[in-house]
Amino acid sequence: MPLIRIDLTEGRSEEEIKAIMDTVQDCSVEAFKVPVRDRYQIVTEHKPGRMILLDTGLGFERSEKAIAIQVFTSPRATINKKKFYILLAENLEANCGLDPKDLLISVTTNTDVDWSFGFGKIQYLNGELPKEENE
Amino acid sequence: MPLIRIDLTEGRSEEEIKAIMDTVQDCSVEAFKVPVRDRYQIVTEHKPGRMILLDTGLGFERSEKAIAIQVFTSPRATINKKKFYILLAENLEANCGLDPKDLLISVTTNTDVDWSFGFGKIQYLNGELPKEENE
Amino acid sequence: MPLIRIDLTEGRSEEEIKAIMDTVQDCSVEAFKVPVRDRYQIVTEHKPGRMILLDTGLGFERSEKAIAIQVFTSPRATINKKKFYILLAENLEANCGLDPKDLLISVTTNTDVDWSFGFGKIQYLNGELPKEENE
Repeated sequence: MPLIRIDLTEGRSEEEIKAIMDTVQDCSVEAFKVPVRDRYQIVTEHKPGRMILLDTGLGFERSEKAIAIQVFTSPRATINKKKFYILLAENLEANCGLDPKDLLISVTTNTDVDWSFGFGKIQYLNGELPKEENE
Repeated sequence: MPLIRIDLTEGRSEEEIKAIMDTVQDCSVEAFKVPVRDRYQIVTEHKPGRMILLDTGLGFERSEKAIAIQVFTSPRATINKKKFYILLAENLEANCGLDPKDLLISVTTNTDVDWSFGFGKIQYLNGELPKEENE
Repeated sequence: MPLIRIDLTEGRSEEEIKAIMDTVQDCSVEAFKVPVRDRYQIVTEHKPGRMILLDTGLGFERSEKAIAIQVFTSPRATINKKKFYILLAENLEANCGLDPKDLLISVTTNTDVDWSFGFGKIQYLNGELPKEENE
């Protein structure tokens, strides 16, 4: 946790997709201060035309390279969300050549009891995992 | 925002899928009073059998044409949600031939700080985008 | 409702996928006390490498068989969530051979007005569906 869905249009190599996944994870670890193995990612590639991401009138056009990052997480402070967004824009550009205008991010919040990481246990409640400092 | 996921079973033409996307967007603009370029849609086609949408005992059978529309949005008033659902049922039938019983809708709510539309910025916080009237 | 997304990596037969779907549904009915036809499931298969599910440092390695179950639902009591997770771990192992360490579960909560099961109606508000006992 967080669980992060990454949606993008076909056309990237395996290496490019892996670099995006790695970069998103590094940003999550740095911004949310989660353990390095707190990694839950699902990438879905779509045919052209299956993703339409406009700009709400902000004044830019996205390319076919645009990606949507949807984050499901227990509560995170605004300061950590801000850091996460900025890191994503900077590092996806630096590491993956993603134009910062091609980055849509959305976060949805749940709570500790909403996560089971294996064995049907609730590891945030049974003490196996500590609460996170920025919740 | 909203970000709208549309899941459906294979078998529609490109034109039919595009018509569904356009209709869903028109309904969002009308019901939620968002800008016309406030459009964030992801369509996923599934093999037969990968979507099971029953009826909670309401007394109808859906067809293979059934679609699931999942909306992620900042808070919307009940009156706007009601309008959105009704518009979807009416207009997807009129424009796309969708049987109104083949329409499942689910909404999940987040907040302004949960959206970054590009450049790693939070456009609802930094003043680039105004708050929406029906939030 | 709940709407349940099941994400897994390619390599299972149609029968195996159907068994997972049926088992998840049986667990939902038992844990949440929903009607048997309260079934809304979407399965997405991914190419190898498109899902990365680690362990937050809990000390285990998942296999390529790992699945992510993401639940969207109106509020559920902790006791019902606990039961749901345990039933999933037990029954997916018994019925589908899923190693309990290969099971990631995440729940996201919304409310009654966030659901339309057909015809653009809000069946939890218009009286067609009763409130659920464990909400």
